[in-house]
Amino acid sequence: MKSVRQAAVIVDSNVAALHAATATESIQSAGMAATAIIFPAGEEHKNLSTYSRLMDSLLALRPAVDRDAVVVALGGGVCGDLAGFVAATALRGLRWVQCPTTLLADVDASVGGKTAVDHPVGKNLIGAFHQPSAVLIDVLALRTLPARQISNGLAECVKHALIADAAGLDFLETHAGQLLEAQPDLTARLIAHDVAIKAKVVSADEREAGIRAHLNFGHTLGHAIEASVGLGRILHGEAVSLGMVAACRLAAQRGLIGADLAARVESLLLRLGLPTHQEGLDVGAVESIMQHDKKARAGRLRLVLPVGLGRVDVFDDIPPQQVRQAVASLGQ
Amino acid sequence: MKSVRQAAVIVDSNVAALHAATATESIQSAGMAATAIIFPAGEEHKNLSTYSRLMDSLLALRPAVDRDAVVVALGGGVCGDLAGFVAATALRGLRWVQCPTTLLADVDASVGGKTAVDHPVGKNLIGAFHQPSAVLIDVLALRTLPARQISNGLAECVKHALIADAAGLDFLETHAGQLLEAQPDLTARLIAHDVAIKAKVVSADEREAGIRAHLNFGHTLGHAIEASVGLGRILHGEAVSLGMVAACRLAAQRGLIGADLAARVESLLLRLGLPTHQEGLDVGAVESIMQHDKKARAGRLRLVLPVGLGRVDVFDDIPPQQVRQAVASLGQ
Repeated sequence: MKSVRQAAVIVDSNVAALHAATATESIQSAGMAATAIIFPAGEEHKNLSTYSRLMDSLLALRPAVDRDAVVVALGGGVCGDLAGFVAATALRGLRWVQCPTTLLADVDASVGGKTAVDHPVGKNLIGAFHQPSAVLIDVLALRTLPARQISNGLAECVKHALIADAAGLDFLETHAGQLLEAQPDLTARLIAHDVAIKAKVVSADEREAGIRAHLNFGHTLGHAIEASVGLGRILHGEAVSLGMVAACRLAAQRGLIGADLAARVESLLLRLGLPTHQEGLDVGAVESIMQHDKKARAGRLRLVLPVGLGRVDVFDDIPPQQVRQAVASLGQ
Repeated sequence: MKSVRQAAVIVDSNVAALHAATATESIQSAGMAATAIIFPAGEEHKNLSTYSRLMDSLLALRPAVDRDAVVVALGGGVCGDLAGFVAATALRGLRWVQCPTTLLADVDASVGGKTAVDHPVGKNLIGAFHQPSAVLIDVLALRTLPARQISNGLAECVKHALIADAAGLDFLETHAGQLLEAQPDLTARLIAHDVAIKAKVVSADEREAGIRAHLNFGHTLGHAIEASVGLGRILHGEAVSLGMVAACRLAAQRGLIGADLAARVESLLLRLGLPTHQEGLDVGAVESIMQHDKKARAGRLRLVLPVGLGRVDVFDDIPPQQVRQAVASLGQ
């Protein structure tokens, strides 16, 4: 690889107003050309149509954009997914650097090399595995985030603790208040810790054949809840929170964990500003969407359930009526 | 990987009429579900818009299309590029099987794992590297091809001979007549031989960092000629033929090869029904398009030129006026 001469900074309209000039000027001061490419903020724009327009803007920079060019994804998870997919497929793969600006992207999207756009049939159905060359996380960027967005990221931290790290649950319980305020030192410790957990799982299993599936804890249910409630009406971490609550209740009912652990998780989620209850949840819609989830293989639903503190396992033999009952409990 | 339950056969409207029923029935008789997905024939449809519609049709087959599903590309190079890119990016990567139905696809597109669509700015600018699980070549399918399409494929065979296989040039000269008629035994020998050459180059250098660039012999010029003449007015192999003629003349002028080898190549191309001359070629347009070619790095044109019989090398120091003169000679 030769040195970078041209960087394309892909950024949504909200983040552009806060950070685009800083980013492009910083790159330019290092002697490279940098151009910001802006797309409209909002998960509803994470689709092939936005992808196609981003590609138009990127390729309009030819010949400056050649195989040595670098894509910079500056923003939250939607931006990383979109810009990463552009990088994965422009000129059959450009290098990219991820600069997450939300806690959720810091601890989740920044590790694993998953890129994607949504399709009307389901989320993240079109994409590629494409590892970034570097990830730059600045915890001070979190200070521009509303509290609800901090909670959104903390849901993934709870997930990491539950699947692989019993001590992490203590850390979250001890520091819940300061973490909600994005206190820089504690937040940096949390991010470093969570990135390490996710990196360990992902590097053991980059293409999700085995234990990477553990990261889907709360997500098979969560994605379906998110889709049934409607994009934009519930945040990803909130849906995952509900998914984890349902999974814990189901696990407790099957005797995989004690009711005390399920209650402890719910209590922590509430302290972190996350929901354990969703008014008017459409259980039939959630079920039907889960059947279309790409994590279903050959039509059989696979669920990740806790089997102890910091341990999960994959199950594909849960009776549908038990799943339905756990989902229904979220709306009661 | 689990066994395949659902195959999606992606095929253009021309090939569908000839072979789609045979292919889907053959898959079904092996106990799998198979659905044909048809797109309009013609390179002008190798774009993001067709890709998006193919993705819609594929994802409409969910949940039957899950991670164990297989995409079958049944057709020529356009179909392989399009269907391969769909496979590379549906659910972040499905397995795919390539069933080429043209000689060009047999000897070229079937090896290397390159998938792509075109963009108004240039050919193949959006795509991915995604190796097929299997390639099935039936030489009898070539009997449905017009003669011009056989010549189109033979241009790549001449290219392979010139970059890596001096003996291949003899084979083509000896059997030119029978190869033009797609005589099955000789054609099968030729394909096996050419696939082995390309596979050797590609496996040594899957991501085109080094010697894979040799495969671009005749292509940097050829792509620019193809774009300047207009898609659909000249076949890929015809443009590559012109590109090779210009490259050989340029190499002879610089003393890299003798004028006798350049003349021998031109004579063979003519016998194989390929052009060595293009009336009214717009030299300025060709030059300008080459500058936008993705094979230009940091704005510098890289050309592959012959340096002997069966040997080429990459040059990035050819004076533009020499390139212009060689291109102009094609129109005189």
